[in-house]
Amino acid sequence: MTCKSRINTIFPVKILIILAHPHKGSFNHAIADVTVRTCSENGHEVIFHDLYEEDFQAVLPDTEIPKNAGVPAIIENHCKELTGADGIVLIHPDWWGQPPAILKGYIDRVFRPGVAYEFAEGDSGEGVPIGLLSAKAALVFNTSNTPLQRELEAFGDPLQTLWKNCVFALCGVNNFYRKMFSVMVTSTDEQRKVWLNEVAETVTQYFPPVKARV
Amino acid sequence: MTCKSRINTIFPVKILIILAHPHKGSFNHAIADVTVRTCSENGHEVIFHDLYEEDFQAVLPDTEIPKNAGVPAIIENHCKELTGADGIVLIHPDWWGQPPAILKGYIDRVFRPGVAYEFAEGDSGEGVPIGLLSAKAALVFNTSNTPLQRELEAFGDPLQTLWKNCVFALCGVNNFYRKMFSVMVTSTDEQRKVWLNEVAETVTQYFPPVKARV
Repeated sequence: MTCKSRINTIFPVKILIILAHPHKGSFNHAIADVTVRTCSENGHEVIFHDLYEEDFQAVLPDTEIPKNAGVPAIIENHCKELTGADGIVLIHPDWWGQPPAILKGYIDRVFRPGVAYEFAEGDSGEGVPIGLLSAKAALVFNTSNTPLQRELEAFGDPLQTLWKNCVFALCGVNNFYRKMFSVMVTSTDEQRKVWLNEVAETVTQYFPPVKARV
Repeated sequence: MTCKSRINTIFPVKILIILAHPHKGSFNHAIADVTVRTCSENGHEVIFHDLYEEDFQAVLPDTEIPKNAGVPAIIENHCKELTGADGIVLIHPDWWGQPPAILKGYIDRVFRPGVAYEFAEGDSGEGVPIGLLSAKAALVFNTSNTPLQRELEAFGDPLQTLWKNCVFALCGVNNFYRKMFSVMVTSTDEQRKVWLNEVAETVTQYFPPVKARV
């Protein structure tokens, strides 16, 4: 996995940025700030959601499960943003090798059949889904208090396969990059500055500045 | 991993059973019914929660994060049940290689520091947690529409490491068994009966009938 962008940007692109952390002063919020600012400075259109701030309702109800189900306007809007996104950035802490429930619920409700994936005609739903997202790249930034070696040895870093394979590859987004920043709880201000610079560099590599058309 | 119980039951034990599926007539509900009935018939005390039915509030708020934070009475009660459980059974569909958000939120809010795990004194939170649960076994039953071979090859079956390593081993429950029933969407009534018999057998192996004291 390289950190080299496959988006050779001429025009502004739409970047959907989703943050899921309950504490306003968290490092996750700092990552989100840098991501939003970098995308804006590079000339892109940013759609940003702080799921906690917006009180996103995380629980997928039975009525929304069918492919053609009606969904509330707020979910329909989230779906349109996802469909129209040229790039996606998710920011969240590692809680139990998974995203916080509020972000899991965003996936459950917004990454719908007919929006993020679908099954081929005649398939009963047991086949290989066809990805529908047109985003050219997806980035995930995580924070953790588990040292990397223990994360790999004891847990196998499940967030990597969850986001890379179970979500984005399934939905047709194969240009994927993820970075886990750890150990947060013992990190210094200096270390955090270095990490935030790394966030900005990564965002620019994947979503470079808009160039004038020749 | 064997399916042989390490609980050699003489007295009734408390079994905590958690169901997370939005549809009342789902096979997950059938699994839960069989699990509850088998535990009861075997003479055990059952605590059962249908998280959707109970409208469990899945989102962990910032105020509940500190170890010694006050939590609402309903969460405190869930924590007491978890602490007092001799056995735990979770039942949920595989959504994106993870549990539904409502069950992820149950873990986020109920598997608290000081309840399910803690850090050694002097540890800043980056060390290896100490498991606090006294349950002698944890079972997880899942349903999926992904054929087993594709699940393993394309996704690596992340639910196995999520529940076995990231949650239960971390919290001190090392006697773990999980079964994924698939492919649900094309399964016959006959196949489902076989699967429900398997659920009953597994539950009895782990939580066998109460024996009279000699």
